[in-house]
Amino acid sequence: MSKDLISQLIDTLRCLPGVGPKSAQRMAYHLLERNREGGNKLAHALVEAMEHVGHCRICNTLTEHDECEICSNQGRDGSLLCIVETPADVLAIEATGYRGRYYVLMGHLSPLDGIGPEELGLQKLADHLDRGGIDELILATNSTVEGEATAHYVGEMAHKREIRASRIAHGVPIGGELEYIDGGTLAHALAGRQSV
Amino acid sequence: MSKDLISQLIDTLRCLPGVGPKSAQRMAYHLLERNREGGNKLAHALVEAMEHVGHCRICNTLTEHDECEICSNQGRDGSLLCIVETPADVLAIEATGYRGRYYVLMGHLSPLDGIGPEELGLQKLADHLDRGGIDELILATNSTVEGEATAHYVGEMAHKREIRASRIAHGVPIGGELEYIDGGTLAHALAGRQSV
Ligand SMILES: [Zn+2]
Ligand SMILES: [Zn+2]
Repeated sequence: MSKDLISQLIDTLRCLPGVGPKSAQRMAYHLLERNREGGNKLAHALVEAMEHVGHCRICNTLTEHDECEICSNQGRDGSLLCIVETPADVLAIEATGYRGRYYVLMGHLSPLDGIGPEELGLQKLADHLDRGGIDELILATNSTVEGEATAHYVGEMAHKREIRASRIAHGVPIGGELEYIDGGTLAHALAGRQSV
Repeated sequence: MSKDLISQLIDTLRCLPGVGPKSAQRMAYHLLERNREGGNKLAHALVEAMEHVGHCRICNTLTEHDECEICSNQGRDGSLLCIVETPADVLAIEATGYRGRYYVLMGHLSPLDGIGPEELGLQKLADHLDRGGIDELILATNSTVEGEATAHYVGEMAHKREIRASRIAHGVPIGGELEYIDGGTLAHALAGRQSV
């Protein structure tokens, strides 16, 4: 016998990060008791996003279009390429007023989990660098072991192509994740970047 | 121009209780980057639950069936009727080992918000009491101003019909909501109920 619909809803809400059994229950009852329209809208938004959001042809970030909004913007400085791990990191860097372009790795190197350069899809970044026009790579991966290793590897890719590479300054707390850092600290870290 | 699908997903995730802009963003990216299958399952569970979950014909709780599982269970003691505000409260009382039956108000009296006996649908409870067979009403509404007022009103409904009414003991912290209280305290409160 299959579970009843309320239990199924509570179970599936737990696929959301940070949602335990108690808050999943609270969410399910909240929608059922007070906001069925919101529940239906959420279902629709989920289906649309899961189906139609893919990766930007140029910078690899998540977007429903062939090219993301930033890549389509001719006013951005194409000589600066900021390398980040996730789309959320793009939003964090955008908030500092940065006007260059991005490449989004959608992860980091993690040999212990079997994620090497090939699994991370770094060939797409290599092709991007080979197309030319880039003066400097800003390595803005997280200040974690994996983020540092990834920055080092991508820095080497830049050096081989005689492109300058810099690492954002250690204003970012060690072990910290970019997306949780306040805009001021992040602006400072960008300004204080060092050649590597 | 309409918002892009990722922004729409982030916006609609905020209809979930306790989800602010930052956690909505985190949830959306988590699903898109790592768990699209989970996102699709959640959408499906939402649609099914929003469409098919209604109220139990007998006890008024949320269920996809005509009668809920507890009301369909012939082994429950029909002489005891526990009055609670929400379906989550039923789960909390169930965990104490209670074996009577329930009536779920789906709210409480709140004259300031325009919720009187009629708006709360207390006629359905009155009909239920009039069908007979109930020896005692256990008033297990929250220990808030509205919960106490509701308990008082439902207690009067019982008295008019010469049904005993009791209020769960004040082991429940004043101002506290039933669904967050540990099972031991709640079992104690049930055992120590007083006639009203
Ligand atoms: Zn792009
Ligand atoms: Zn029922």
